[in-house]
Amino acid sequence: MNRQWLYARPPSGKLGRDTFEWRETAIPEPQPGEALVRTRLLSLDPANRAWMMGKTYRDALQPGQVMSGYAIGEVVASKAAGLARGDIVEGDWGWQDYAAMPAKALTRRTADAPLELLIGPLSVTGLTAYFGLLEVGQARPGDTVLVSAAAGAVGSMVGQIARIAGCRVVGTAGGQDKCDWLVRQLGFDAAVDYKADGMFRALRAACPNGVDVYFDNTGGPVLDAALTLMNLRGRIACCGNVSQYDVAKPAPGPMAVPGLVVVKRLRMEGFIVLDYYDRRAEAEARLARWIAEGRIKAELDIYDGLEKAPEALIGLFEGNNRGKRAVRVS
Amino acid sequence: MNRQWLYARPPSGKLGRDTFEWRETAIPEPQPGEALVRTRLLSLDPANRAWMMGKTYRDALQPGQVMSGYAIGEVVASKAAGLARGDIVEGDWGWQDYAAMPAKALTRRTADAPLELLIGPLSVTGLTAYFGLLEVGQARPGDTVLVSAAAGAVGSMVGQIARIAGCRVVGTAGGQDKCDWLVRQLGFDAAVDYKADGMFRALRAACPNGVDVYFDNTGGPVLDAALTLMNLRGRIACCGNVSQYDVAKPAPGPMAVPGLVVVKRLRMEGFIVLDYYDRRAEAEARLARWIAEGRIKAELDIYDGLEKAPEALIGLFEGNNRGKRAVRVS
Repeated sequence: MNRQWLYARPPSGKLGRDTFEWRETAIPEPQPGEALVRTRLLSLDPANRAWMMGKTYRDALQPGQVMSGYAIGEVVASKAAGLARGDIVEGDWGWQDYAAMPAKALTRRTADAPLELLIGPLSVTGLTAYFGLLEVGQARPGDTVLVSAAAGAVGSMVGQIARIAGCRVVGTAGGQDKCDWLVRQLGFDAAVDYKADGMFRALRAACPNGVDVYFDNTGGPVLDAALTLMNLRGRIACCGNVSQYDVAKPAPGPMAVPGLVVVKRLRMEGFIVLDYYDRRAEAEARLARWIAEGRIKAELDIYDGLEKAPEALIGLFEGNNRGKRAVRVS
Repeated sequence: MNRQWLYARPPSGKLGRDTFEWRETAIPEPQPGEALVRTRLLSLDPANRAWMMGKTYRDALQPGQVMSGYAIGEVVASKAAGLARGDIVEGDWGWQDYAAMPAKALTRRTADAPLELLIGPLSVTGLTAYFGLLEVGQARPGDTVLVSAAAGAVGSMVGQIARIAGCRVVGTAGGQDKCDWLVRQLGFDAAVDYKADGMFRALRAACPNGVDVYFDNTGGPVLDAALTLMNLRGRIACCGNVSQYDVAKPAPGPMAVPGLVVVKRLRMEGFIVLDYYDRRAEAEARLARWIAEGRIKAELDIYDGLEKAPEALIGLFEGNNRGKRAVRVS
């Protein structure tokens, strides 16, 4: 039997359980050129919510289809050259136990690393942090790096990579607990609770030399504050807009755009990690070494059981995650 | 006698005649290291208004000081090495007949070019267009370039340089007359009246292949439209925000920031022409050649008499200029 979560209907405002519908169906037969994959871990990402809002860098989700999502799985049967039973693969086959996937939609991963690392720190999450910070943001030693959603999967990696790169690192997160964790466990120089009063003053105090690189996962009020704190020729790596994904009515745009962008000669640049996949091996090797050396803590936040996927995703927008959120399916 | 316009008081909302105050005073004596300059032409620029709003790339204007502004003048007496009577110089000595200026605040210009070209097309205006389009915007042959305030000093140069660079050129301007002028006289491929209904539809029709480079002089609704029309990896050269300079209450920021910036991997980058002054000679030589060859029409819009400076600046924000606005002082 193949258990699936369908994307049932567009959320009106916030995601709810009724956004998804459970279905049990037959396990598909792989056709020539395809492999049958069994899902091991599902990656839960804020982008999953953005895909419901319309066309992005991919087509919008259509009600009735299996909920999309990036996953790690194991080949259990193959009619595709180059893929064999037991291979570990990644791809976007969504929220289900099994999928028959064309070989070209799968990427073989090493069997040497724990699956938990392959779903996040050594995959989309880690690569997003790595290329966004170092290539788009051009973080350099001595820079002050600010990152929003710093306790999240990408943000927690950004901060740790920035420390390795010799930067001063400041994060924003929701709640004092997460902020303490960033400073005490992950080595951030400072962390600011964006839900508390006085966020701007606290950020200004935490960045006495201004901000050279802002890694923006959220848009919204932290972006507004960052624009004000940016130094001349500062860089804003636009990675996500999570403050605006799960709302009925989007907030107005940042007032400081384009005024402060001109005056301070800022660069705001959007990116998608896929654009950097030709350099994936280089980045993965470095991330793996830093994790092995204990210089990066790969924090994982794993729900057990496919049935928990909706609540795991809904919780992301309530900010109840710490590090990389995934669902263990088998 | 030295006639001056003082910056008398911050405008509340729109610029008015009472923003400025006329004064007649003695001609200053140059001190050692200074030259006495007689103003020939004053450059009127939207940035003059922005300087009243607070600190930008320069300190805010202070009520009571001579109104600032970039100018071309002639040295009439010199106590500075390297400057002699008759030299043509540029600098920011503001709205007055005479100024005693330290030599390091003056730049010697050639006496070969007409002063009217030195005040705009072969100076700040032309260089802003050149570097903003080609360096910040990275315009390449075959690109569609959109420019706002296209009938203005910078915009009219941007469009003509973009044509020389092999781009399709679309401009926005206020009113059908200006739009016709852009297409018929300056060779724009299309021009859209941003004050008319249906601006977005008209822009979309004028850019059937989307927009690769948007040269933003205005912010506001044209920036909103451009963000929607930008192609993947499009570049926005943020040069000015003139739609927001002369208003009591600024408009909200662009809703599409940062959402579409991420999805389309856009780059928005602010710049100030001074950042490129080390390459000034190269750019001026090319602009001078294009003007001499008739490939760039240097449109000038000159008011006669220092007493007209306030109305000339106020008119800029009513959009009554075409090309480079300046005031002939002597």
